Amino acid sequence: MGNNNLKPFFDPRSVAVVGASDKPGKISNIIVRSLKAAFPGPIYPVNPKYTSVEGLKCYPSVQDIDGKVDLAIYALPAGATPDAIRSSSGKVGGAILVSGGFAEAGESGRALEKELKETARHEGIRIIGPNCMGIYDNVSRLDTFFISTERIRRPAPGGVSIISQSGSFAITAMDELASEGVGVARVISYGNRMDVNESDCLEFLADDPATTAVALYIESVEDGRRFVEAAKRCSSKKPVMAVKVGKYGAGARAALSHTGAMAGRLEVYRAAFKKAGVVELAGYEDFLAGCKVFGKDLRPEGNRVMIITDGGGMGVEIADACLAMGLEVPPLTEDVKEAIAPLFPQYFAIGNPIDLTGSATDDMFAQALEKAMSSDGFDIAIVAALWGPPALTDDLPELLSEKAVFTGKPVIICSPGGEYTRQRLGLFRKFGFPVFTTPEGAVRGAAALARNRKRADG
Amino acid sequence: MGNNNLKPFFDPRSVAVVGASDKPGKISNIIVRSLKAAFPGPIYPVNPKYTSVEGLKCYPSVQDIDGKVDLAIYALPAGATPDAIRSSSGKVGGAILVSGGFAEAGESGRALEKELKETARHEGIRIIGPNCMGIYDNVSRLDTFFISTERIRRPAPGGVSIISQSGSFAITAMDELASEGVGVARVISYGNRMDVNESDCLEFLADDPATTAVALYIESVEDGRRFVEAAKRCSSKKPVMAVKVGKYGAGARAALSHTGAMAGRLEVYRAAFKKAGVVELAGYEDFLAGCKVFGKDLRPEGNRVMIITDGGGMGVEIADACLAMGLEVPPLTEDVKEAIAPLFPQYFAIGNPIDLTGSATDDMFAQALEKAMSSDGFDIAIVAALWGPPALTDDLPELLSEKAVFTGKPVIICSPGGEYTRQRLGLFRKFGFPVFTTPEGAVRGAAALARNRKRADG
Repeated sequence: MGNNNLKPFFDPRSVAVVGASDKPGKISNIIVRSLKAAFPGPIYPVNPKYTSVEGLKCYPSVQDIDGKVDLAIYALPAGATPDAIRSSSGKVGGAILVSGGFAEAGESGRALEKELKETARHEGIRIIGPNCMGIYDNVSRLDTFFISTERIRRPAPGGVSIISQSGSFAITAMDELASEGVGVARVISYGNRMDVNESDCLEFLADDPATTAVALYIESVEDGRRFVEAAKRCSSKKPVMAVKVGKYGAGARAALSHTGAMAGRLEVYRAAFKKAGVVELAGYEDFLAGCKVFGKDLRPEGNRVMIITDGGGMGVEIADACLAMGLEVPPLTEDVKEAIAPLFPQYFAIGNPIDLTGSATDDMFAQALEKAMSSDGFDIAIVAALWGPPALTDDLPELLSEKAVFTGKPVIICSPGGEYTRQRLGLFRKFGFPVFTTPEGAVRGAAALARNRKRADG
Repeated sequence: MGNNNLKPFFDPRSVAVVGASDKPGKISNIIVRSLKAAFPGPIYPVNPKYTSVEGLKCYPSVQDIDGKVDLAIYALPAGATPDAIRSSSGKVGGAILVSGGFAEAGESGRALEKELKETARHEGIRIIGPNCMGIYDNVSRLDTFFISTERIRRPAPGGVSIISQSGSFAITAMDELASEGVGVARVISYGNRMDVNESDCLEFLADDPATTAVALYIESVEDGRRFVEAAKRCSSKKPVMAVKVGKYGAGARAALSHTGAMAGRLEVYRAAFKKAGVVELAGYEDFLAGCKVFGKDLRPEGNRVMIITDGGGMGVEIADACLAMGLEVPPLTEDVKEAIAPLFPQYFAIGNPIDLTGSATDDMFAQALEKAMSSDGFDIAIVAALWGPPALTDDLPELLSEKAVFTGKPVIICSPGGEYTRQRLGLFRKFGFPVFTTPEGAVRGAAALARNRKRADG
């Protein structure tokens, strides 16, 4: 199974929607609309009930379409799907099955999925799904995620690709990333993974120039050995991070009675991640943090964090979180102390954290960042800008950005607070900073970066 | 030191601002403006340079004010403060010193603070600070927090009182709570605690009918034995929670070289918290979560969580987080299963989590909540409402609220996502739910509640 196998999914020249409906709100209608809005190639609605759908010519069957169809999306009742695949014989390269009602839905569903699998194999059609959202792709402009953009926003183009077993996890993360201004390359929700699985996707993304980092959400892995190989190959080229859920055994229930077993299972995953160079993410918050920091081209040389803030308490809080998450917060070296001391009033606490106090100005932040990060002693900076001090202005993000570029080291912004602060988060994002609204969030981002560094070491 | 000692701080009939300035933006000017906007009693600006400040008569000295001054706020250079206190002799009940430049600022500052302490003791004036923000009080309407409300919003009246050694921590949390619609009773930033300390405040708040829960941010405790006694008395009447920062020794630095020592120190605090019935909070995120859940009148009988969602992946994620944070996620009991099964399509996953899938409706959420929480098997519900499913409407929060009231058990909302979702958070808040935007956040809230329950048990 080479990567070319997945080409119809990630580089389709033409797309059919089987079961296309003209009724607004229907899953298949939302998909046709999304494709019309963005997909550059021909779109073929297929449904014997219509002659046109959303203004596009609608075909009675897949076989009636002129020429080959790279990718077909099937939005049909589960029971009708195997026949639809059979009748696509020789015509369709890849299929995305968005419908549920298969293995996840009990005995009869499992039988149906078995039949489907045999049919697909027989017809030589590769399948993503069933019971999935399919693909959102900023490279090919494919969008099979059948939830309106009013409810779930789509992220702008970016470097992170997401592979998710769970559709709801994928869309929620996408929506959140879109609102946080974090871009993605490709998002794959593979659901029941009847055919295409996490390892297939990893193999494809390893060689995908549009993907600069990969984030996985997995409940389980189909073939452990193959996963480790695929992840290892991918992580040798770009950061790969993963959240494994159902950590405590098959669902929460098992976890309660079989603590020993569950820890063992989790350990197996941990060992596999380690072997494969995969950065383990603890959960949803870590997942978002990872996407934020790996979406930028940031790679620290070590795990030594410099904290610069205008709020002493927040500084201590960040230092605590760093230590709790395995990062170092070394003291200021003498040379940095000497470089910084003359710039600030004598009563400033010159250490790590550097506390600029309520007298902080934009320039003090910028100077502190430049001087501290010019030292060999620090690998990552967390700048915790609290907006209380009246001298701080909206120029701060740009000034910090100049210094961050100058030092060439990752700089993470921590900016907790209410309305005034939240309105300023966009300024930091505009200048390319990963932005977090809690001390712990910023440290999660720093820790994810640092774990990727560690991998490179050993 | 009875509670009456602190009455001038929390129930002042008159307030003076010593060093009051008429210049906008100056600390003392902001304080006069805040008092003018809300404080119901007489306000006396004091400054020989002015005859009026912000339209109020300005006095050359404290002694020139007619009658007693319950509370005086001193916004003067550090060096001028001891004399100012001396000249307030017999006139002032309590003093808040907002200026820095004392013990936190090195050798000479320490000497100054020592002098100040002796003076205050000699004059019989109790002092909050120096180097603090003072008090924000929704009961007395006092506000000495000298940051404009444009930058830092003030929370509405509510039941949580906050005691914070760090001013920046307090204002950031206040600003965030205000934006999240969480109210507070009183907020005290006590800074260098030259006189009034955390134990004094705890003793006062224990008997304060306006305070229904207390949240502490402490870097250290002045007198361990007294703290335990004060906290114990307070926690016997209302929930008391605390975040202890600088967990890893005196600052991050010490932590790196003296791991053994720091763990020991942390253990001492943990033991003290346990003895005193204080719920330990891990950091800023936990602190916010605690304020959200303890702001409501919610008290679970146990730690068994029911999870109801329309996103399978989010459900598993929440279950994971529950188990990681010491909560139970027991299976559905047979009676609940029987009550719920007829209400939903057969393909729904009826378990814990209950996954209502993308076919979810408002009514399904409401029914699931009512049936599951009517069972004796669950103490806390986390409802993870993802807004993708098109049938969900803005009526959901009200419907859920009716059921929550009916079952009388704590219901926590988890609603992660982007714009559409974020716009709906206010609806949940309007109906009194504690609202979180990540699975881990919701579980932090549930865990804080459950830890308070545990305390009551033993």
